Amino acid sequence: MKDKLRVGILGATGTVGQRFIELLDNHPQFAVAAVAASDRSQGKTYAEACAWRLAGEMPEAVRSLIVEAPEPTLDCDVVFSSLPGDMARETESRFRAAGYKVISNSSAFRMDADVPLLIPEVNAEHLALIEGQTARHDGEGFIVTNPNCSTIMLALALAPLDKTFGIEAVAVTTMQAVSGAGYPGVASLDIMDNVVPFIAGEEEKMESETLKILGRLNDSRGGIEAADFAISAQCHRVAVLDGHLAAVRVKLKQRAALEDVRHAFDSFTALLPELPRELKLHSAPEKIIIVRDEPDRPQPRLDRDAGRGMSITIGRVQPDAVLDYRFVCLSHNTIRGAAGAAILNAELLAATGRLS
Amino acid sequence: MKDKLRVGILGATGTVGQRFIELLDNHPQFAVAAVAASDRSQGKTYAEACAWRLAGEMPEAVRSLIVEAPEPTLDCDVVFSSLPGDMARETESRFRAAGYKVISNSSAFRMDADVPLLIPEVNAEHLALIEGQTARHDGEGFIVTNPNCSTIMLALALAPLDKTFGIEAVAVTTMQAVSGAGYPGVASLDIMDNVVPFIAGEEEKMESETLKILGRLNDSRGGIEAADFAISAQCHRVAVLDGHLAAVRVKLKQRAALEDVRHAFDSFTALLPELPRELKLHSAPEKIIIVRDEPDRPQPRLDRDAGRGMSITIGRVQPDAVLDYRFVCLSHNTIRGAAGAAILNAELLAATGRLS
Amino acid sequence: MKDKLRVGILGATGTVGQRFIELLDNHPQFAVAAVAASDRSQGKTYAEACAWRLAGEMPEAVRSLIVEAPEPTLDCDVVFSSLPGDMARETESRFRAAGYKVISNSSAFRMDADVPLLIPEVNAEHLALIEGQTARHDGEGFIVTNPNCSTIMLALALAPLDKTFGIEAVAVTTMQAVSGAGYPGVASLDIMDNVVPFIAGEEEKMESETLKILGRLNDSRGGIEAADFAISAQCHRVAVLDGHLAAVRVKLKQRAALEDVRHAFDSFTALLPELPRELKLHSAPEKIIIVRDEPDRPQPRLDRDAGRGMSITIGRVQPDAVLDYRFVCLSHNTIRGAAGAAILNAELLAATGRLS
Amino acid sequence: MKDKLRVGILGATGTVGQRFIELLDNHPQFAVAAVAASDRSQGKTYAEACAWRLAGEMPEAVRSLIVEAPEPTLDCDVVFSSLPGDMARETESRFRAAGYKVISNSSAFRMDADVPLLIPEVNAEHLALIEGQTARHDGEGFIVTNPNCSTIMLALALAPLDKTFGIEAVAVTTMQAVSGAGYPGVASLDIMDNVVPFIAGEEEKMESETLKILGRLNDSRGGIEAADFAISAQCHRVAVLDGHLAAVRVKLKQRAALEDVRHAFDSFTALLPELPRELKLHSAPEKIIIVRDEPDRPQPRLDRDAGRGMSITIGRVQPDAVLDYRFVCLSHNTIRGAAGAAILNAELLAATGRLS
Repeated sequence: MKDKLRVGILGATGTVGQRFIELLDNHPQFAVAAVAASDRSQGKTYAEACAWRLAGEMPEAVRSLIVEAPEPTLDCDVVFSSLPGDMARETESRFRAAGYKVISNSSAFRMDADVPLLIPEVNAEHLALIEGQTARHDGEGFIVTNPNCSTIMLALALAPLDKTFGIEAVAVTTMQAVSGAGYPGVASLDIMDNVVPFIAGEEEKMESETLKILGRLNDSRGGIEAADFAISAQCHRVAVLDGHLAAVRVKLKQRAALEDVRHAFDSFTALLPELPRELKLHSAPEKIIIVRDEPDRPQPRLDRDAGRGMSITIGRVQPDAVLDYRFVCLSHNTIRGAAGAAILNAELLAATGRLS
Repeated sequence: MKDKLRVGILGATGTVGQRFIELLDNHPQFAVAAVAASDRSQGKTYAEACAWRLAGEMPEAVRSLIVEAPEPTLDCDVVFSSLPGDMARETESRFRAAGYKVISNSSAFRMDADVPLLIPEVNAEHLALIEGQTARHDGEGFIVTNPNCSTIMLALALAPLDKTFGIEAVAVTTMQAVSGAGYPGVASLDIMDNVVPFIAGEEEKMESETLKILGRLNDSRGGIEAADFAISAQCHRVAVLDGHLAAVRVKLKQRAALEDVRHAFDSFTALLPELPRELKLHSAPEKIIIVRDEPDRPQPRLDRDAGRGMSITIGRVQPDAVLDYRFVCLSHNTIRGAAGAAILNAELLAATGRLS
Repeated sequence: MKDKLRVGILGATGTVGQRFIELLDNHPQFAVAAVAASDRSQGKTYAEACAWRLAGEMPEAVRSLIVEAPEPTLDCDVVFSSLPGDMARETESRFRAAGYKVISNSSAFRMDADVPLLIPEVNAEHLALIEGQTARHDGEGFIVTNPNCSTIMLALALAPLDKTFGIEAVAVTTMQAVSGAGYPGVASLDIMDNVVPFIAGEEEKMESETLKILGRLNDSRGGIEAADFAISAQCHRVAVLDGHLAAVRVKLKQRAALEDVRHAFDSFTALLPELPRELKLHSAPEKIIIVRDEPDRPQPRLDRDAGRGMSITIGRVQPDAVLDYRFVCLSHNTIRGAAGAAILNAELLAATGRLS
Repeated sequence: MKDKLRVGILGATGTVGQRFIELLDNHPQFAVAAVAASDRSQGKTYAEACAWRLAGEMPEAVRSLIVEAPEPTLDCDVVFSSLPGDMARETESRFRAAGYKVISNSSAFRMDADVPLLIPEVNAEHLALIEGQTARHDGEGFIVTNPNCSTIMLALALAPLDKTFGIEAVAVTTMQAVSGAGYPGVASLDIMDNVVPFIAGEEEKMESETLKILGRLNDSRGGIEAADFAISAQCHRVAVLDGHLAAVRVKLKQRAALEDVRHAFDSFTALLPELPRELKLHSAPEKIIIVRDEPDRPQPRLDRDAGRGMSITIGRVQPDAVLDYRFVCLSHNTIRGAAGAAILNAELLAATGRLS
């Protein structure tokens, strides 16, 4: 554990918190040093406080950690937060004020003008916002967020199209897994033999976050100039455990042949340009976008673990009679869409010297 | 049973065949007089041949009927067909040639120029095609078809919009129930904890059938002039037993306020104009389109049986940033989407004197 | 509504409460006059307070009822209770003290010595306990309970065997539906693609309640002398919406041929002997036990609604190498196993003059 | 691949066949050299012929193998068979006659007197049957089988009890996963929101196979003397993808304290006594039986992959009022219950010099 950054987890017993613990087990750069959660758990060991719901056993290293209050007295270098939205704003704010680097999966600060809404392969240059943020808050602390689970997938899919052809309009219809709602989350009585065509706030998040992520860093005035294409999201909950699926239609600014669209996905490799080419973030997948040509892929159960849950999979790329192209994409919503996203963000922050 | 039309069912042991039997039990106008199915079942009683998979018991009246070959020797006045597509073309053709009136749920003849693709509330005037058809086939026999299970729902939802505002483009994304694939149909290993973004031929059917249904009867040259709006369908199979859901976006020709769109759905009552106003088809629902204003409806399990499975339910009607409006609609795929659709067609044929 | 008994529902917005409302709609003897529930709902109309989760619409008659506190000021003749166990003991007790007749689906009083644990077809003579109960509590109020959802099914299946052959031992293994846990109840993350081999308190309830139900009214000293056979229950939650299934093995006191066992189930018709033979309780099914001979029945989805949810279905009756016989039984857990059970109890109370 | 035994897979494209391929990828002793399957697949590459349905990609090494007929001309040293029961008897027989060593997961030969029904940790001494078998069949070929997927789990759970206390009676009730039925196997229409209380032949297999496995090698006359305790199995299919669960009750010959029963499970480590202690079969799990003390374990989704799918998990060990003890056990039905079982058998055969 020597030389590793000491990490604290806020919301450590929840669905995403458990994924943090699982993914950080044996991580080369980070070691879980503190866990924090709501009142009921505090004072117990993590093993006592947490009903582990992931397959496999709870990692040994965290079993005896004492669950603490989510207060900026945690003994750690960096904080990962998966607090519920209502608590997150105040708590993360206090951590930042106390000088902590907060890498957050919560929605509270995502749309703040000086907070990066970061996907390393898409908008690493937005990290520049941190300077303004620390300046404003008068300290070393800052908050970096990752997008909503559905948005990450969509933004990753759109990024190569936007870069190559420009985007004019996007219509996305999601079929989202129950793990996205946390635990206990979706009642079995609501979702078995059923689809629920509503997830509170999700359509709005997908629309606004996507435009910020694909927005341009505004050098003159600071902040992000949001992308300006039309975007429409319809979100549904389906009886799937893990893995969000999205049926996407997109209108491009430039004409593009089907093969060019497919190639844009398949060859997508963007990352912060100033970083050395050989930089390989630990959690980054071999391939960001896996394109499949079978007529019936991607499927949540078969494709969600691709690239250890950090790749997204795109299939059914076809011309579309209403917009220009359509395709189906899929990603693991609690890995690439949440805990893995935050950890990848932390790895980029570390690689660019922002966590030391 | 006296005075009732005597009905034969082709494909009587399948998923849709069983729905025919269920829905025709105690029907005021039709009585099941003959059942036909593939080789293995022939010669057995229906009770022996058919593994009844609907809730409730197999109706007494059909238990002792002997399953016959699907040949035009069946002793009946009218034939309902739910034969698989590959058999349907040849078999239904033989029945027509032998003078039978064939009301078919199969896809074989749906796109034929002289075959009505009928939804009574939408395009009853297309029945006029029958004249040309009987003329061409030199007899009294004819084929009338109902659309694909997903198409019916979409066409019913679009009809009031098209009539009131005109349609310029439609993008529909479906989440379809497993019963739509018949029995054994979708393997449990394929659909549990999963979504399959592919149903063979379904996207093409939704696109082409919708345009024919909403097309105009071409008085001068006969046939149907297909509607000419742009249409794009993305189809998915989800872990739902009954009830297809569709997320629809639509661009209208005329400007319409949200309230007008909602009202167009809610007040939709079209039927063949020349029919007496008081005509009430037995299987027609009290309300064709039920509009729900809760944020999380329609849902397959809660709404599929609305109007005894013959209403469609529409919810989440909202302005859309890419096209003009979006909404979610749902219908029972083996009732309104198949057996009930065919029976309603037969009722309209009877009411207009075409079955006597 | 004139001449009907005016009914109050405690816990009216819950899963079982909604079933009460549904089953009492258009009931010939009872009319819902008051609804009560926990704090959050009070003061709202039932339509506002209750997220209706049953298929079909909320009955019109209750929509505008104002949800009240579960206090013995409710304006009604009889009270149906489906309060959670922890609230039920105190609240139902207060209602009894205030002179109300309480027909309860809660577990709180089931094992009290002077409270009937009633299944009309099994132990109607246990109603005699009411006399002692009212005497002790000095008023007209009393509490009558129905058993746990799994126990009802088991006791109904064992009753004819016990009466005909005597029972020496019973081993039952259940597979129970998620609706048994109320709403939100079982988290989808816990039950999709899974079985949970534990339901808190359920095994104990099945064992102790069954012995009381099949016990003998002790004329000399009052109370029930519990049946004395060995009983063992293993309970599991499975991914089923409605319908508890139980695999049962039973050792009989007398030798019995397989055909005799089957006949005992099939011909079971017991009811309070002193009642006129022609008495037909409104909610009583045509047939109490439906015996099926297909190798693969009963199944929850196909058989739960038999007898409008009030019959139980038994299949796979076979000799057993360890005990004497084995079989599988099934019942609808929120109809025969909860709301329907309580209503049937109320009907028996009314028929025997105990509700006037 | 040098020095590895060259393996042929019969039934290579099926559910169990795919597990063979997956588990043999990078196996230290075996390399897949030939794949065989039914007519339709023959002549194609494995990649073309096989719709891979396991998570993750098809192993590279087998993609270009040409699927051959299951005839004893396959170029390999050892044959793994997962042929369907009806084909297996004749085909495996021909392979044996041709001198092949056949390690079979099929049911065809399991109950043959001279064929080991092998679980290495339970009855390794039954391998002695091979001598008689090869003698009778006049060659080097032999057949070794593994039990039915449910039986393996049960026999593993009973083995330590039988050895330590003796068994007098066993009553087992299973809840089995759909993957046990192969592909397409269980129709989604049959199992969603449902339980099916019947699996053809399964109860008989569990009863007869368990007695053979726990039987004693009959030195004087050859063959196995079956165990003589009473056994009763009730089998159910539930909506679970992988992982069979069994609720077991057992009557012991000797008295045993609860703690002793738990310890017998927990400390179970049997293997062929004459083998060197340090022998570690590659696929053998660290721990054969994992005992869990949480009240709600084992669960299929959480525990099926324990020990890479080769451990079984036992929980809810309790005294039982009808027999002596009860518990719930679980194993991965296509790994420990099928492909992994056969491979472990092959590893024991190799370790004891029977494959060279």
